[in-house]
Amino acid sequence: MDILEIPPLDALAEKTCREDMDFLAKVPGSLGCLEALAVKLAGISETPKPLFPKKAVVVFASDHAIALNGLSATGQEVTVMQVLNFLKGGGTINAFSRNAGASVSVVDVGVCVDIEDAPGLVRRKVMYGAKDFSKGAAMTREQAEACVQVGIDMAREMASQGVSLLAAGEMGIGNTSPSSAIASVLTGASVEMVTGIGSGISSERVKLKIQLIEQGIKLNQPDKSDAMDVLAKVGGPEIAAMAGLMLGGASLRIPVVVDGFIAGAAAGIAIGINPDVRNYLIGSHVSYEPGHQLLMKYIGVDTYFDFGLRLGEGTGAALMFPIIDASVRILSEMRTMSDIGMAPARV
Amino acid sequence: MDILEIPPLDALAEKTCREDMDFLAKVPGSLGCLEALAVKLAGISETPKPLFPKKAVVVFASDHAIALNGLSATGQEVTVMQVLNFLKGGGTINAFSRNAGASVSVVDVGVCVDIEDAPGLVRRKVMYGAKDFSKGAAMTREQAEACVQVGIDMAREMASQGVSLLAAGEMGIGNTSPSSAIASVLTGASVEMVTGIGSGISSERVKLKIQLIEQGIKLNQPDKSDAMDVLAKVGGPEIAAMAGLMLGGASLRIPVVVDGFIAGAAAGIAIGINPDVRNYLIGSHVSYEPGHQLLMKYIGVDTYFDFGLRLGEGTGAALMFPIIDASVRILSEMRTMSDIGMAPARV
Repeated sequence: MDILEIPPLDALAEKTCREDMDFLAKVPGSLGCLEALAVKLAGISETPKPLFPKKAVVVFASDHAIALNGLSATGQEVTVMQVLNFLKGGGTINAFSRNAGASVSVVDVGVCVDIEDAPGLVRRKVMYGAKDFSKGAAMTREQAEACVQVGIDMAREMASQGVSLLAAGEMGIGNTSPSSAIASVLTGASVEMVTGIGSGISSERVKLKIQLIEQGIKLNQPDKSDAMDVLAKVGGPEIAAMAGLMLGGASLRIPVVVDGFIAGAAAGIAIGINPDVRNYLIGSHVSYEPGHQLLMKYIGVDTYFDFGLRLGEGTGAALMFPIIDASVRILSEMRTMSDIGMAPARV
Repeated sequence: MDILEIPPLDALAEKTCREDMDFLAKVPGSLGCLEALAVKLAGISETPKPLFPKKAVVVFASDHAIALNGLSATGQEVTVMQVLNFLKGGGTINAFSRNAGASVSVVDVGVCVDIEDAPGLVRRKVMYGAKDFSKGAAMTREQAEACVQVGIDMAREMASQGVSLLAAGEMGIGNTSPSSAIASVLTGASVEMVTGIGSGISSERVKLKIQLIEQGIKLNQPDKSDAMDVLAKVGGPEIAAMAGLMLGGASLRIPVVVDGFIAGAAAGIAIGINPDVRNYLIGSHVSYEPGHQLLMKYIGVDTYFDFGLRLGEGTGAALMFPIIDASVRILSEMRTMSDIGMAPARV
C-alpha cells in the first residue's frame, strides 16, 4: 500500500477567500456555515475562487459473512443485484448523482461471487467477501492494505479524468456491522450505543447483531492505536477502499465528501492512517444510524443536514454536492459591495 | 384582490406514489423525510411521478420607513442597489438560482423611489415604501390587498411560462421588523422572543427595534383573526406580495418553497387568508432569526436544514430546489425491486 503525503491547506487561498467573502454584495456572515465551507474548499483547492465542475461518486461493493447470521433485512445476493442496477443507472445513487451532475463508478473490491456480464464494472476484487469477524479476523492485514490501495488507485483514476470533487459510496449487505464495530473501537462507545437497524431489522435481530459485534471485538482484540489493525480485524473491503479514496483524494488536493455511517467509519480509519486527511473531508448528512453522529464528532468533521437517511450508497454525499456548488459559486459569480455602489456594512 | 379557490391535494396520486416508493430498488423508508416530501409533491402535482424542470424564484422588493429609525445595518438606498444587482445577475440569489437551474424575477412592489434604467424589472409599485408602523399603519387595507394581488399575478405569469416550482424571495431593507411584528401577533410570542439582529445590528439597536415593534403593535392593535388587518397594520408590501405568490401558486397546484423569516411571516399571513395554502407550501431552511422556527411551527410546515442563513432574497429556498428534485427523481428514474430480481425486504 502506498504511503501518501497529504499537503497542508493553502492558508493564503483561505485568507483571500475569507476577505473576498466579506466584500461580496451581501450581508457579511449571512450565509452561516456555508461561508466557512467555501473557505475550507478554497484552502483545499489552492484558489480563493474554487469551482467543481466535474464530480464523481465511487461506489465500492463488498460482502460480509457476518451478515449470514441473519443480521440484514435482505440476503447477500442483493449486493450483486444492486451492483448491476447501479451499472444500469437504476439506483438511488444514480438518480441523486445525475441530479448533482456527478458520475457514478462501481468497483468490486470484495463481492463474494464472480460478477459476470457487468459492463462498466471496475474489477478490483481483493477477496470473496469479508470473513465473519465474530469468529475471527475479517481480513488479513495484507488484504486490508490491498483494499485501501484500490481506493487510492480510484482517486488517482478519477483525478486523471479531471474530477475535482469526490464522494465515497458503498454497496455491501451487512456492512453496518463492521461499521458499528469500528465506531465502538475508535470512539470507545459501547457497541449498543452505535448499533442500529441497518437495512431495517427487528429489535430481536438488533440484539443478536450487538452480541455478535461484541463477541467479534472481544475475540479479535483490535488495537485502537493501529487503524489498519482495526480495519483488518473488524472492518471490511469496501470500508478499506473508501478510506483509500479519502487518503488518495487528500493527497491530490481533492475534497472527499463523507456520506453516512459506513463512510464515517471509513473516515475514522483514514484519519487513523493519516490524520492530515481530515482537512480534505467534507461532511454531508447525519445518518439515522445511532453511531454516525458520534463518529463524525470523533473525526471532527461538520455535518450539514439530517433527513433521516439510512440507505448508504453515497446518497447523502450526493445531496451535498449542490450545496458545495452553491457555497463556492458566490465567489466566482457575485458582484462586490463596491461594484454595486454600496459601502461596507456598519454594525 | 382575487379570492382564490385552492384545490385539495390529489389523494390517489399520493397513495400511488407512496406504494411505488416502497417497491423501488432500495431499502423501504431509507430516504427518511425525503419520501414524505416526494409524496406531498405527488399530491400537489396530481401525478405519482412529479418532476419540476422549470423553477423560478420571484423576488419582491420594497422599503420600510421603520428602518429609518436606525434598525438596519445599511441604509435604505441598498434596496435599489440590490434590485439592480439582482437584475444583472450578481446577487447571492442569482448564484444559488443558477445553481438550481431556476430563473429569478425581480418585482418592485413598494420601493420608496422610482427605479430608472432597470431592464427586466417587473414594475408593479403599489406604494413608495411601507409607512413607519411604530407611528401608524404600515399600509391601508386596500394597499395591502393590491400588494397581495401583485403576488397572485406573478404566480399566474410564472405558470403561463411553464414554471412548476416556485419560491418567494424578497429584498427590503428593514423587513425583519414587520416580520417580527407579524410573528409576535400570530404566534402570541413576545416581540423580544421573535426579534433578532436582521442585517447585523448591535444589541443596543436590537433593543430599540424591539421597543418600536412593541409600540407599533400596541398602537395599531392588529386583529390576529384577520390576517389582512395584521398585514396592513404591521406588515409590508413585499410580505403581502409573497403571501400572494403562495396563494396564487396553490390555486394553480404549484408548490411554493418557503424561505426564511420574512417568507415565514408571509406564509403565516397567507394561511390566515386561506388555510388550504398550507398543503402547497414546502419548507426549506431554518433561519438564524430567532422567530423563524416558531413561525414554521405555527404554520405547520416542515423545515429541512439549518445552515445559519440570515440573508433572505429566497436563498434558502433556492438551496431546497435540488433537494426537491432529488426526492422526486427517484420516482421517475429508479428501477424497482422486481426489475432487479429482488424480493421485497423481510423485516
